[in-house]
Amino acid sequence: MARKISSSGISRRSVLTTIAALPILSTPPLRTSARAQGADQLPSWNNGPAKQAIIAFVQATTDASSSKFVPREARIATFDQDGTLWVEHPMYTQVIYCLDRVPALVRQRPELRERAPFKTVLSGDREAIAKLPLHELEEVLFATLTGMTVDQFSTEAKAWIATAKHPRWDKLYIDLTYQPMQEVLRYLRANGYKTYIVTGGGQDFVRVYSQQVYGIPREQVVGSASGTTYGYNKDGNPILTKDPKLLLNDNNAGKPEGIHLMIGRRPFAAFGNSTGDQQMLEYTHAGDGARLAMIVLHDDAKREYAYGPAQGLPDTKVGTFTQGLYDEAKIKGWTVISMKDDWNRIFAFEAAGSRALQ
Amino acid sequence: MARKISSSGISRRSVLTTIAALPILSTPPLRTSARAQGADQLPSWNNGPAKQAIIAFVQATTDASSSKFVPREARIATFDQDGTLWVEHPMYTQVIYCLDRVPALVRQRPELRERAPFKTVLSGDREAIAKLPLHELEEVLFATLTGMTVDQFSTEAKAWIATAKHPRWDKLYIDLTYQPMQEVLRYLRANGYKTYIVTGGGQDFVRVYSQQVYGIPREQVVGSASGTTYGYNKDGNPILTKDPKLLLNDNNAGKPEGIHLMIGRRPFAAFGNSTGDQQMLEYTHAGDGARLAMIVLHDDAKREYAYGPAQGLPDTKVGTFTQGLYDEAKIKGWTVISMKDDWNRIFAFEAAGSRALQ
Repeated sequence: MARKISSSGISRRSVLTTIAALPILSTPPLRTSARAQGADQLPSWNNGPAKQAIIAFVQATTDASSSKFVPREARIATFDQDGTLWVEHPMYTQVIYCLDRVPALVRQRPELRERAPFKTVLSGDREAIAKLPLHELEEVLFATLTGMTVDQFSTEAKAWIATAKHPRWDKLYIDLTYQPMQEVLRYLRANGYKTYIVTGGGQDFVRVYSQQVYGIPREQVVGSASGTTYGYNKDGNPILTKDPKLLLNDNNAGKPEGIHLMIGRRPFAAFGNSTGDQQMLEYTHAGDGARLAMIVLHDDAKREYAYGPAQGLPDTKVGTFTQGLYDEAKIKGWTVISMKDDWNRIFAFEAAGSRALQ
Repeated sequence: MARKISSSGISRRSVLTTIAALPILSTPPLRTSARAQGADQLPSWNNGPAKQAIIAFVQATTDASSSKFVPREARIATFDQDGTLWVEHPMYTQVIYCLDRVPALVRQRPELRERAPFKTVLSGDREAIAKLPLHELEEVLFATLTGMTVDQFSTEAKAWIATAKHPRWDKLYIDLTYQPMQEVLRYLRANGYKTYIVTGGGQDFVRVYSQQVYGIPREQVVGSASGTTYGYNKDGNPILTKDPKLLLNDNNAGKPEGIHLMIGRRPFAAFGNSTGDQQMLEYTHAGDGARLAMIVLHDDAKREYAYGPAQGLPDTKVGTFTQGLYDEAKIKGWTVISMKDDWNRIFAFEAAGSRALQ
């Protein structure tokens, strides 16, 4: 978590300015139920280099007569979550969870009520919260993500994620996944690929909903992970308690390191959207044969958000996509996905093809 | 690795005294090719409480009308490797690998030639090697298991495991897996269980052969793991280098902790053979519904080895099975597998049913 979080990134002002800008759904939905052989498996993608890259990769690696054929057991595809599979602005969903947990935490540990940074979080003053220094924000994260048993944490996170909504769309966070990426997940799995989430977010947090939201089982989530300590409760039953100590920081170089630890294979396809994914994309793309490295550029302020600072987009600390990373992608032959140009639909709740037909 | 290794356990004397005791294969092989519905899936198991426990567990958890039914995605079974899936005496196979690597290591790093403990290992003096203190043995392990890229390590280990033989049987180590456990692996997988190795041995080491030897893919191996460091070689290509630092010590309490980290689910079935498996068995068995916890007792000096010290068997530092663990198994309702009484065949290269028909 830590490297991905910056106090200056916590702001909901952009929500207020963009909430009025939702697209008007003026076109009838396209038929998307076609399941026949040859039907478009990626209907939310406009025809273009990004869609073509995905299809060409799958065809080359699954055709037994191709020199780039990949045996089924080696078909591994890894996906960053925040900003790649679902919305990460104005702030990572898990950070919202941690802030929302503070009242319950303070009920259990009243001595924290008057102490910084918990007092600030309890005040509800978003401006002040946005200004918390990194070490104080980390204190909130560790206090709300560790110290309990893994079962308690799972229960708490599950209850929250089932009801918590994003203020801009007034939709559940779990409904704010990108429909085009959901299609890629299904398309890859239909072609024998094992899909993994490789996230800077908390492994235990994402595991709570990964099956329901992405069709990805718990054991295929690689994320930042605290250690646990085995012990016994008062009845003598075994428990695992979450340690306030990071075992795996699954960001930047930690992504290929985490992939090796948890999967033990180099992926053939990887998807990301920020500098935190750079090393995963490098590592994936440097393998031999056909490799697919794709990176989502958030260039659609109208339908989602616009940030970079690549390509002159507004700078951000949440999901930073630098011009240097953009240039590396172009030089190395990774594919940059333009949300604006490559996706005709962003969310499942939008009408299909809303942008393509504008 | 560390906790499982003891200098006093390194001895090949028992090999010399038992090598003449190989069973004479005097009976014709049973037919084991029956694949028809209802055929015995566990032909190397004698009828008895252990075999019955396995079959009853699978039937209860896969019958949709049973109150103990387990949905397919939750069907996780974990297996210790050394002493549970293959022979661990007189010494863990991976430790033999490390000792065998020392000459190549010294060629690369000549300054080690005259230094303890490498000088001792190079001497070939088994008595002296057996007396190496733990910290010196660990120095050999770290020097031979870390410092190289993960790809280099994989190449080296693969070459060794393809040819290295156990002195007692003059068979490849990979041919010394227990046929009854291979049958359990296949039986569980045929019933929708995902089988994992959860070993105190090195994760990267076991991954080299897990698919070939057990039908278990690399990503389903949980083991003691060093961290890795992401970097670039002189050509600018990404590499992962194995750090001389233990990230996960997958023994004792480290087994349930490793299971949570790598799988994120509590197993429904677990198999072990020593005190290093105690916490994994406790954790598994304490779950609700039907749970299977089984522990192999090496009580067959004639066909394999006999050690405990449970039940008055000879004591050992390699795969210790204490009387305390035996008593815990009996009290908690885990099943102790007697190699002597429950297995009519130990290795695939033996005639089927060799013991049952004696």
